[in-house]
Amino acid sequence: MAGSTFGTLFTITTWGESHGPALGVVVDGCPAGIPLTSDYIQTFLDRRKPGQSKFTTARKESDSVEILSGVFEGYTTGTPISLIVRNTDQRSHDYSKIKDCYRPGHADYTFDQKYGVRDYRGGGRTSGRETIGRVAGGAIACRILEALGIHLTTYTKAIGPFSIPSDAYDYSAINENRLYMPNQKYAEQASAYLESCIREQDSSGGLIECMIHGMPSGIGEPVFNKLDAALAKAVMSIGAVKGVEIGDGFSVVSSKGSKNNDSFFAENGQISKLTNHSGGILGGLSDGSTILLRAAIKPTPSISQPQKTVNTNGENIKIEISGRHDPVIVPRAVVVVESMAAVTLVDLLMQNMSSRIEYMKQVYLGI
Amino acid sequence: MAGSTFGTLFTITTWGESHGPALGVVVDGCPAGIPLTSDYIQTFLDRRKPGQSKFTTARKESDSVEILSGVFEGYTTGTPISLIVRNTDQRSHDYSKIKDCYRPGHADYTFDQKYGVRDYRGGGRTSGRETIGRVAGGAIACRILEALGIHLTTYTKAIGPFSIPSDAYDYSAINENRLYMPNQKYAEQASAYLESCIREQDSSGGLIECMIHGMPSGIGEPVFNKLDAALAKAVMSIGAVKGVEIGDGFSVVSSKGSKNNDSFFAENGQISKLTNHSGGILGGLSDGSTILLRAAIKPTPSISQPQKTVNTNGENIKIEISGRHDPVIVPRAVVVVESMAAVTLVDLLMQNMSSRIEYMKQVYLGI
Amino acid sequence: MAGSTFGTLFTITTWGESHGPALGVVVDGCPAGIPLTSDYIQTFLDRRKPGQSKFTTARKESDSVEILSGVFEGYTTGTPISLIVRNTDQRSHDYSKIKDCYRPGHADYTFDQKYGVRDYRGGGRTSGRETIGRVAGGAIACRILEALGIHLTTYTKAIGPFSIPSDAYDYSAINENRLYMPNQKYAEQASAYLESCIREQDSSGGLIECMIHGMPSGIGEPVFNKLDAALAKAVMSIGAVKGVEIGDGFSVVSSKGSKNNDSFFAENGQISKLTNHSGGILGGLSDGSTILLRAAIKPTPSISQPQKTVNTNGENIKIEISGRHDPVIVPRAVVVVESMAAVTLVDLLMQNMSSRIEYMKQVYLGI
Amino acid sequence: MAGSTFGTLFTITTWGESHGPALGVVVDGCPAGIPLTSDYIQTFLDRRKPGQSKFTTARKESDSVEILSGVFEGYTTGTPISLIVRNTDQRSHDYSKIKDCYRPGHADYTFDQKYGVRDYRGGGRTSGRETIGRVAGGAIACRILEALGIHLTTYTKAIGPFSIPSDAYDYSAINENRLYMPNQKYAEQASAYLESCIREQDSSGGLIECMIHGMPSGIGEPVFNKLDAALAKAVMSIGAVKGVEIGDGFSVVSSKGSKNNDSFFAENGQISKLTNHSGGILGGLSDGSTILLRAAIKPTPSISQPQKTVNTNGENIKIEISGRHDPVIVPRAVVVVESMAAVTLVDLLMQNMSSRIEYMKQVYLGI
Repeated sequence: MAGSTFGTLFTITTWGESHGPALGVVVDGCPAGIPLTSDYIQTFLDRRKPGQSKFTTARKESDSVEILSGVFEGYTTGTPISLIVRNTDQRSHDYSKIKDCYRPGHADYTFDQKYGVRDYRGGGRTSGRETIGRVAGGAIACRILEALGIHLTTYTKAIGPFSIPSDAYDYSAINENRLYMPNQKYAEQASAYLESCIREQDSSGGLIECMIHGMPSGIGEPVFNKLDAALAKAVMSIGAVKGVEIGDGFSVVSSKGSKNNDSFFAENGQISKLTNHSGGILGGLSDGSTILLRAAIKPTPSISQPQKTVNTNGENIKIEISGRHDPVIVPRAVVVVESMAAVTLVDLLMQNMSSRIEYMKQVYLGI
Repeated sequence: MAGSTFGTLFTITTWGESHGPALGVVVDGCPAGIPLTSDYIQTFLDRRKPGQSKFTTARKESDSVEILSGVFEGYTTGTPISLIVRNTDQRSHDYSKIKDCYRPGHADYTFDQKYGVRDYRGGGRTSGRETIGRVAGGAIACRILEALGIHLTTYTKAIGPFSIPSDAYDYSAINENRLYMPNQKYAEQASAYLESCIREQDSSGGLIECMIHGMPSGIGEPVFNKLDAALAKAVMSIGAVKGVEIGDGFSVVSSKGSKNNDSFFAENGQISKLTNHSGGILGGLSDGSTILLRAAIKPTPSISQPQKTVNTNGENIKIEISGRHDPVIVPRAVVVVESMAAVTLVDLLMQNMSSRIEYMKQVYLGI
Repeated sequence: MAGSTFGTLFTITTWGESHGPALGVVVDGCPAGIPLTSDYIQTFLDRRKPGQSKFTTARKESDSVEILSGVFEGYTTGTPISLIVRNTDQRSHDYSKIKDCYRPGHADYTFDQKYGVRDYRGGGRTSGRETIGRVAGGAIACRILEALGIHLTTYTKAIGPFSIPSDAYDYSAINENRLYMPNQKYAEQASAYLESCIREQDSSGGLIECMIHGMPSGIGEPVFNKLDAALAKAVMSIGAVKGVEIGDGFSVVSSKGSKNNDSFFAENGQISKLTNHSGGILGGLSDGSTILLRAAIKPTPSISQPQKTVNTNGENIKIEISGRHDPVIVPRAVVVVESMAAVTLVDLLMQNMSSRIEYMKQVYLGI
Repeated sequence: MAGSTFGTLFTITTWGESHGPALGVVVDGCPAGIPLTSDYIQTFLDRRKPGQSKFTTARKESDSVEILSGVFEGYTTGTPISLIVRNTDQRSHDYSKIKDCYRPGHADYTFDQKYGVRDYRGGGRTSGRETIGRVAGGAIACRILEALGIHLTTYTKAIGPFSIPSDAYDYSAINENRLYMPNQKYAEQASAYLESCIREQDSSGGLIECMIHGMPSGIGEPVFNKLDAALAKAVMSIGAVKGVEIGDGFSVVSSKGSKNNDSFFAENGQISKLTNHSGGILGGLSDGSTILLRAAIKPTPSISQPQKTVNTNGENIKIEISGRHDPVIVPRAVVVVESMAAVTLVDLLMQNMSSRIEYMKQVYLGI
């Protein structure tokens, strides 16, 4: 498939550039019969919009979403849902510096190599604003998951060296700080760290964690569209992500089978696991436990420090990227990770509907 | 797409169970005009076949591959290439123990939950033998990459706590030890460690690294089928993989922009990078540097120690999985990671062919 | 894929309802470097817009297209192109009659059966206005084809019993009459016939023919995505189409091999065919001759005559569908057929780019 | 998708050449829990195998199918089903004539144009034997449809000028004659006609009709993967098909709305139609009536008469294609049309499973 569409049955097709007239998404394959309003979608977009704190760009955007199709009398109709967000703060800037140079850590060079041309205004399609379509689509996915009793909790686990141990989580704190960290004390330390980054004209990386509760077991399509594989693609496709792990993730390298295996146990006719090293996925299928995934986010590449680079004439130069930049991408990326995970879950739940002939008989023959 | 097909233009469709009559793959979309023999493919299969060392299962399988279609007079014809490997050592075992229980760390439970039935003989489709089709397909992908001057080097970076630092790599050692480690001394330490695992009826995890040289820049399909996203899915779909990272990977979490950004520089009209924290991928497109990816492999779930679990009647039981098991999956998985990466690269190179109208004019109009 | 996306590498994703705020399309996979303006796209939309003649609905719609992304400084950038057309004449009507009944020949009943709900205003997603997205996307496909020297000529071959014999074609007449017929005399007879249909509160079917010149040979992806198969799907997906044929089409039934086979001949080093019964496609691949396809269009189902039907309560009723209706769909569908054919051609030309390793070497190695 | 895979959730991937060691198919996405034996599949293959009558090639092939995976203890497991048919009568022939020339009506020329190479033995991948994989896959699709109460009846409606009127159908005759015609008298006339074709070293075209009973209403994925569009592609992808129509098909061209619209009526709480001009499909969705499709099959291109053509050196020559050829493709293509239709129906039934949130709640929440 062309690269702007994600999913098989439940698809999102995103479009739009940082400084074009608008950005948006077409969500296709949404089941009919789900209550949906633009207000619901807006709450997701508000979690990624700029200007929320001192750690986000000063660009003024309300990022108001409009539903253009697919919803009638408050319910989804099964037809494609088109969502649009107009850019309002795309006043003409002086792009002469960016236009002629390849910013380190950005996709300027690689886009030029691929297409022979690029929209250099604010990064064009490679801007973080590209995620607006993902989040708007993710909101609809979350609405479907809600109807099935599935819930996602996503937060910042670490910023720079400040990583919250799992036993220090306080989920009620997530929305109490602008960094979406589940521990107020760590959030304060991370804030101080980010302020020092700003002073040093530098930026920080971080770690996002997503927990999924209520997922039925057996979801995923072996052997290539397994749940973990699909989640890995979904999350790795987000701009600044450099690593994805499930459950114990990279720590399995130095682990042993006796420790890493999760024992099953039965209680009151319910099968469960004594531990969850697997992160809720066994053999690429959900195992009924909480699904746990983490994404490593690189430091914002836009920093004000002078940097060595090359211009489009192939000359070695130094650039200073002026303007206010987010010293960290992580907090605004939290809802993006959640959105991509949600879209993946819905798509795989749908594909699983025909995994047994008895499900098909149930729907078509009522038996 | 149904889960057994991977890719868009260059696809592999794998099939087969551990104890069925055969396993195989259909490779479709292979360009015409490439020299191909079963001997070439066999060299890849031999890298994953059992019985190579004391650390692999004693199952006797020659894993001989037969080409059934798509090759004529030694060259690919553009039609689908069907490859088959007959199972020869699938003598009837006593599966009564496995049949009725859910082995910890295995997909027995989740397959039963998904399909309501499973082929319990040797794990059926969830066996490591499933990777035969991946490797046979990967061999053909590597043949195409060779023709384009692209080469992959894949090896074991770590087994248990024994991780080779990047500055201690000796690539010539990779094929000198049965663990495929690029450092003979570490390989010996890891061997001793694995022997202790065997004695303790336990198993070990490990880390595989893949380096890709010669990749043209600009390859990948934004925003969802980026090169890193596609590689993440490809590699995460392999049975025991719990994490995937590119370049500096998870260490970006505690890094800073000033350190993580790779400066471009120009020399003799050639643009290159001073460092390679990005692992050869910027904005989801290859940047012309060496591509670097790593996969975390969990410890073999089959261990002889008694383990708590549940049987299919929902009763709590203890099992001991008898027989010889690989104390580590890593060495045999090295070629599987390479294969999945190669298939992904070919597929994206093909998709990129129409990224510019000038490429299309070149092929169709000769201008 | 979810049903609103068509294509593999070059995709169109359409959205929008007859009486929603807007309709549109996202075109993805368009090569970079093509000059594109909204004026160019508008000329295609103008060919399907209402109010052009007495044979089309009186609904007032300018159907002005806006480009929202993917074009920069007059050229395509390779990123998704989002096109939007606002509905302006969707004033509130009285839909109480339609709302509660299933119109014969329409999709009211089947949509209710599928989704359990439908947007009944003007047919919602099943309205002919759905084709706006197809035509806007088709315009971009035609722009790409132009760059490769491929041209489509599409016209009305028959309306009701008035069918123009192939030897009476006058292509210069196509744009001289509102029915897009390549013969002025037949166009006048058909006009008179349609006026009688209006008087009788009835409607007429018709036949559209599309000729494609300049297509390179060998295009199509055996065995399932052959050129004829892909064209058949593309064209049959248009609302009122009930049949598709290539070349001699259904007349091959009573033909013989000796007559139906086209002999090849060589002249000045150029291989060509003496006849073109195949319609330019052999074995599912373009053969270098003119491609010829025809689509049968059913009579407009909306007629003012009283008709028996059923309401949503399952009661037998009679309805009269008031208002002005097109007595024939054909003239406005001409550009829709052309658009779907064009999108198909571009998509298959792109897929063909990697059919030979020598093409890949040409693009990537310059040899 | 690469061209050898058909379908989205239920896929068939076919492979194999006329004179290679074997042909086959991988069927993926088959629901678990369906009883399946090779005997069942064999009955479908027997309907297309050569040597059944004087009108089919004398090639001796038992076309015995072997199940290599995906079935365990007599039931499908949800994993891919690999089916293989070994070629037994591929003794070495003298292909020197075919090797160097482009047979009229065949794909020799177009394959050479696409791939720059072709397997010329017996047509290679363009041989009618390619349909073995389609039919084996179609058998499994029919097994699934059976479980859901859906049945297909496919037969020869016309051979040459001998076309059976719909009111003269005698379905019990279909299996009473080797032409699969639902009227014994017409079958005899057609037989005599075919004998005259043989005497004249010529061949005949024909018409295949497929009726589908028991299809639930609302199946199809608007707007591009509608039921009729998907069927058109499926059937047009068969080698010799030059036209596809649904219901009244091409006769709608000269029809009127008042005649072509099918009135709905209600009886005993059941909604039905008074006529079935639509052929069971309205707005691209099944409408609950019998689905009716027809495919036009061109005359066998292999005829013994001398024909003008060109050789691979670009010289004008005459060829005589020696050997026994089927004077008509139609009877053996009947089961191929049925197979492709069946695969399409299953795939769309599966995609429809998630069209309503209430279906998803039914399967996942049991409500």
